[in-house]
Amino acid sequence: MAGSTFGTHFTITTWGESHGKALGAVVDGCPAGLSLQESDIQAYLDRRKPGSSPFSTPRKEADQVQILSGVFEGKTTGTPISLLIPNTSQRSSDYSEIASYYRPGHADYTFDAKYGFRDYRGGGRSSGRETAARVAGGAIAAKILKELGIGVRAYTKSIGPVSIDPARFDPDAILQTATAMPDREADERAREWLSSCIEEKDSSGGVVECVISGMPAGVGEPVFEKLDARLGSALFSIGAVKAVEIGDGTAVSSARGSENNDPFRMRDGRVVKSANHAGGVLGGISDGSDVVMRVHIKPTPSIFRPQDTVGADGQERTVCIRGRHDPVIVPRAVVVVECMAALTAADLLFSNMSARMDKILSFYGK
Amino acid sequence: MAGSTFGTHFTITTWGESHGKALGAVVDGCPAGLSLQESDIQAYLDRRKPGSSPFSTPRKEADQVQILSGVFEGKTTGTPISLLIPNTSQRSSDYSEIASYYRPGHADYTFDAKYGFRDYRGGGRSSGRETAARVAGGAIAAKILKELGIGVRAYTKSIGPVSIDPARFDPDAILQTATAMPDREADERAREWLSSCIEEKDSSGGVVECVISGMPAGVGEPVFEKLDARLGSALFSIGAVKAVEIGDGTAVSSARGSENNDPFRMRDGRVVKSANHAGGVLGGISDGSDVVMRVHIKPTPSIFRPQDTVGADGQERTVCIRGRHDPVIVPRAVVVVECMAALTAADLLFSNMSARMDKILSFYGK
Amino acid sequence: MAGSTFGTHFTITTWGESHGKALGAVVDGCPAGLSLQESDIQAYLDRRKPGSSPFSTPRKEADQVQILSGVFEGKTTGTPISLLIPNTSQRSSDYSEIASYYRPGHADYTFDAKYGFRDYRGGGRSSGRETAARVAGGAIAAKILKELGIGVRAYTKSIGPVSIDPARFDPDAILQTATAMPDREADERAREWLSSCIEEKDSSGGVVECVISGMPAGVGEPVFEKLDARLGSALFSIGAVKAVEIGDGTAVSSARGSENNDPFRMRDGRVVKSANHAGGVLGGISDGSDVVMRVHIKPTPSIFRPQDTVGADGQERTVCIRGRHDPVIVPRAVVVVECMAALTAADLLFSNMSARMDKILSFYGK
Amino acid sequence: MAGSTFGTHFTITTWGESHGKALGAVVDGCPAGLSLQESDIQAYLDRRKPGSSPFSTPRKEADQVQILSGVFEGKTTGTPISLLIPNTSQRSSDYSEIASYYRPGHADYTFDAKYGFRDYRGGGRSSGRETAARVAGGAIAAKILKELGIGVRAYTKSIGPVSIDPARFDPDAILQTATAMPDREADERAREWLSSCIEEKDSSGGVVECVISGMPAGVGEPVFEKLDARLGSALFSIGAVKAVEIGDGTAVSSARGSENNDPFRMRDGRVVKSANHAGGVLGGISDGSDVVMRVHIKPTPSIFRPQDTVGADGQERTVCIRGRHDPVIVPRAVVVVECMAALTAADLLFSNMSARMDKILSFYGK
Repeated sequence: MAGSTFGTHFTITTWGESHGKALGAVVDGCPAGLSLQESDIQAYLDRRKPGSSPFSTPRKEADQVQILSGVFEGKTTGTPISLLIPNTSQRSSDYSEIASYYRPGHADYTFDAKYGFRDYRGGGRSSGRETAARVAGGAIAAKILKELGIGVRAYTKSIGPVSIDPARFDPDAILQTATAMPDREADERAREWLSSCIEEKDSSGGVVECVISGMPAGVGEPVFEKLDARLGSALFSIGAVKAVEIGDGTAVSSARGSENNDPFRMRDGRVVKSANHAGGVLGGISDGSDVVMRVHIKPTPSIFRPQDTVGADGQERTVCIRGRHDPVIVPRAVVVVECMAALTAADLLFSNMSARMDKILSFYGK
Repeated sequence: MAGSTFGTHFTITTWGESHGKALGAVVDGCPAGLSLQESDIQAYLDRRKPGSSPFSTPRKEADQVQILSGVFEGKTTGTPISLLIPNTSQRSSDYSEIASYYRPGHADYTFDAKYGFRDYRGGGRSSGRETAARVAGGAIAAKILKELGIGVRAYTKSIGPVSIDPARFDPDAILQTATAMPDREADERAREWLSSCIEEKDSSGGVVECVISGMPAGVGEPVFEKLDARLGSALFSIGAVKAVEIGDGTAVSSARGSENNDPFRMRDGRVVKSANHAGGVLGGISDGSDVVMRVHIKPTPSIFRPQDTVGADGQERTVCIRGRHDPVIVPRAVVVVECMAALTAADLLFSNMSARMDKILSFYGK
Repeated sequence: MAGSTFGTHFTITTWGESHGKALGAVVDGCPAGLSLQESDIQAYLDRRKPGSSPFSTPRKEADQVQILSGVFEGKTTGTPISLLIPNTSQRSSDYSEIASYYRPGHADYTFDAKYGFRDYRGGGRSSGRETAARVAGGAIAAKILKELGIGVRAYTKSIGPVSIDPARFDPDAILQTATAMPDREADERAREWLSSCIEEKDSSGGVVECVISGMPAGVGEPVFEKLDARLGSALFSIGAVKAVEIGDGTAVSSARGSENNDPFRMRDGRVVKSANHAGGVLGGISDGSDVVMRVHIKPTPSIFRPQDTVGADGQERTVCIRGRHDPVIVPRAVVVVECMAALTAADLLFSNMSARMDKILSFYGK
Repeated sequence: MAGSTFGTHFTITTWGESHGKALGAVVDGCPAGLSLQESDIQAYLDRRKPGSSPFSTPRKEADQVQILSGVFEGKTTGTPISLLIPNTSQRSSDYSEIASYYRPGHADYTFDAKYGFRDYRGGGRSSGRETAARVAGGAIAAKILKELGIGVRAYTKSIGPVSIDPARFDPDAILQTATAMPDREADERAREWLSSCIEEKDSSGGVVECVISGMPAGVGEPVFEKLDARLGSALFSIGAVKAVEIGDGTAVSSARGSENNDPFRMRDGRVVKSANHAGGVLGGISDGSDVVMRVHIKPTPSIFRPQDTVGADGQERTVCIRGRHDPVIVPRAVVVVECMAALTAADLLFSNMSARMDKILSFYGK
């Protein structure tokens, strides 16, 4: 089966391995007439780029995107947009050893089980580098949303035991801190925590929160293509995500209905909610409030301690992973979460356009 | 957009409203030669049927399924299986009042925002009754899995503050307790909790856990159609689900790599894992361990206390919901979770069949 | 694989066998607010109903459609519309013999080759009766098109050697003649031809032509989802169709460019074409002219002459088919062609709504 | 809507404009373990390359393909294969004039009608150059089929009034003649005809025939995903195709059942047919005979005679097209037809693998 395409109306197809010649994405279904240039996309890729802090892999990748199609005289044409990101730092020799065994917490074993063999260089297709292609495509989705007055913002909510304090929320800090936390105090403590992880040859998990603001009510389909179901699919498709929450998330299981229901109120002649436990989705359809989601990301599986595993020869052994690895994935995952949310929202905004006969008639001038 | 179909190779399309003539599902892509009769499906529907305990709505629905196509002489033919469940208890008068306002926590407002009007009888398409159709189809998926030696089992893990104790895990209790808890002590405490909720005209949330056992390694696609991404989509498509966890789930965000990685070992000449923090999925592909997932379900939004809301006339008002409503959705959601997991697994097991050239050649006798 | 669903935005899923309990369709993606009742659909089904002329099978089927979901207070709700057509005339005994051999020109052998066995009663799923479900769904598509000012009209163009004369084109005759020809003289000659076919225990092929008028320019997607590619898929999915033509069709292969190109002209301030060799499609996108297509339908394979074939026992034998069979499929296929064209057009009209950024902004009030 | 992806299990997504930086395709769902190198693909691209005869455009394009992903150590890995073909000959200046008017027979007007503007350089996305990407992907499908013992062969059947004589069928001639005709005498006469077309500043249509041999019985899905419906979709998605025939094609409409039915016979213990009017498909499923199809291709719309049309300024005018254009598309379309047939067959061969429970059980070792 295929499986490298996301979306129905606005789609992204990604391709590429960690140590192949290049990575890329094809974005199809992008409407014509959107102003777009490589710098729009590069700004997103730069947020994901490794090598910018002591907590990300020292691998240097320029991650320079090229638009190969779908844009003419600075505007999208409605035809597929092909995005290419050459791989420039492919020290495959680092990975020659790991061909011989299955790294715990990685997809080495499962790829072999599925395909009979694998591109072992840097994890091949299962590498986090694949998400660079998603970010390139997601930047286009984000630009469409922006024109519609919809913003998508993700940030690190916690790393290991360190959480941000909402009272100190500083949006500027997201792009300025090494942890992508919107709280400079928490960032400092998180960096200390990560230093201790590195010292102990260990790694840490964390939480990314993402908010879509300005989403009109009515977006999402009632049954299998619910807004939250599509977001769930989008977010769990990011390699290290092990839990997804919408709105109050896990807290709802210990809540009572009287606490969890959001009252409707009128404001400026419009229906609004005076609380948002639901996270902006009721019955799978956006309710006009912020769409709020959180993902729980596992600690980087590549740690430098000795670990028990099995070799390709079927022998048990103890291994010690080498190479270039982040002690935490979370800060670099922030922009990936943002982009997957943007891709989901754009797709559902387009699908929603044929929901009502009166609007279809008006669209076609009847 | 459509949105009422789930799956690519093995698909289910559901239709029907809470108070329409009937509900149903079309299952397409079911392989030929599976022995199937209505009783196979009825057994699953009976687990979801209301009216069997003080904690489920007193609405009486026979939920008798009819197979209208796709089965000949007791076996599936490979063509679509149409399943029909007549609605027999449609006391629409109960719902006439709610046409006039938006119930908090329900999809009334969002349906109106999307479609311009709604079938207000019992929530229409957004009613939990829609899941009866999923259960009917999921029973077929479960039967296919069973023939492949794969079991799917869900149960209530917690209701409000009451959680099961793994040390007391009793699988027989799942079908015997009113709460679907595999722990009779916890069941008793949960029932007390629910009685107090009813007394206080309130409702409760809870957690359902589901385990797929016997899943071969190699199932799931590496990028957007990951096993966990598909499960995420399947589970979030169930109305009241606000969080989904795979394996250790939310706990991974505060874990370290050294704790979270599952070591590989050899057992009986096969690669196994000596722990299962990953919940049976690595890189989106099954690793041969149990696939473990949890969903957090919100408290029933229909509570009998006065609530603030807005009327269809755009006036703020206080309302008091009447009718037949469960104080907790969790016990009846158990079989729905199980069925969505089964539908997901069957679909990915089929898609996996074309993953390797050698197996394709052997399939076609080359 | 599934395969019983057509469309992406406006979809139809059909189910049911010739001699099962019922046939049906689920239409998903129908916009909310369309006025719809069973009589809208019944009018189309009645055009396809057998038993109304000496040239159609004497099998009597009421083909009474029931709407089971998706309509509330006379209007579509935006949720799936389930359509049910009970089978009332199931003389399965007629078919008991054909279980034992493969009828030439039928799908008996290929179903066995694919599935290992088959529902042999009346052809099971491969029966022309499956198209009743398409007609039920297509009637809804046609109603949507009508509101958009788009008409779809099919008719018999030829039966065996008898073709209509465009000079005598009489649209009223389509619904009044036994052959569905818009030319009463041709109808008479075609009936004579069919009588001679019956006498000789033989059957006849023919041609159905279909015209979509009022289609706005710009509908269809440039590469794989071209308007003509979707129509080709739709029309070849009708059992007996062996060729599909768009516009001048097969004639283009012997034409020159100077003859085949349609000049553009201005009329009433709009771009029009002064010829329509292209059949209303350029580069896969509608050009504002009539969309014109023709399908070539093979003679009914069920003939009452002795035929050579092979039995289920692997022995060659000569067989003589009995039962109820039309000497020509063409007249009853007319409404099926119309409906498949309508389903295709509706789907692409909806997909086209997200083609331009300016129109998306305006749709969402920006 | 998207629309640049073909297939469900084995998919190709194409991108690129005639005069952009490059064209390309992403092939997803290719099984792991297929030996593949660039030369496998280049051989197909070379057959489509312009500039090799007096009857193809003098535009010189190297059409050198690069494999950017999905292949490791000479074998496919099961992950997406990205194929890149740089554009090297982009004389955009040739096309500056045509920005100002709508070329008859081209998609200029329909692209404007749909998208509001267009990449007018060489037809942009609607250019025949887009098919280079399909050929690159189709070469991979053809290689898979070859390993399964399935051959796909297309050739020119006629150009204008000149048809091949089956009695002179010479397969070697297909790759050796300028017309891709398997008949050297017909080739000579066709070349004379084309010379006369060039002299008269005109162009010619023609017919391509394609045969899939070795296809096992049982491939294709019974209703909307019939083998012939998928082929119809695939072939009509090629720009200039105006008619598609399967087997006897248009001839069936004047045939009788006694002529059209193919008798089943036994040969070497297997069921075969002693005729093949059906073209290898019964009820949408392959019957084990050759799958035979024909496409009718319109004359090149770019002719060097004065033509009536309309300018972007809304004024009627007479234009004379300049630039580099083939007087006939047919010979270069041959390999495109072959590739679209191969893509279709591979997709349906994979989808067929989950049709039977017994085979699924055996696949998974049960």
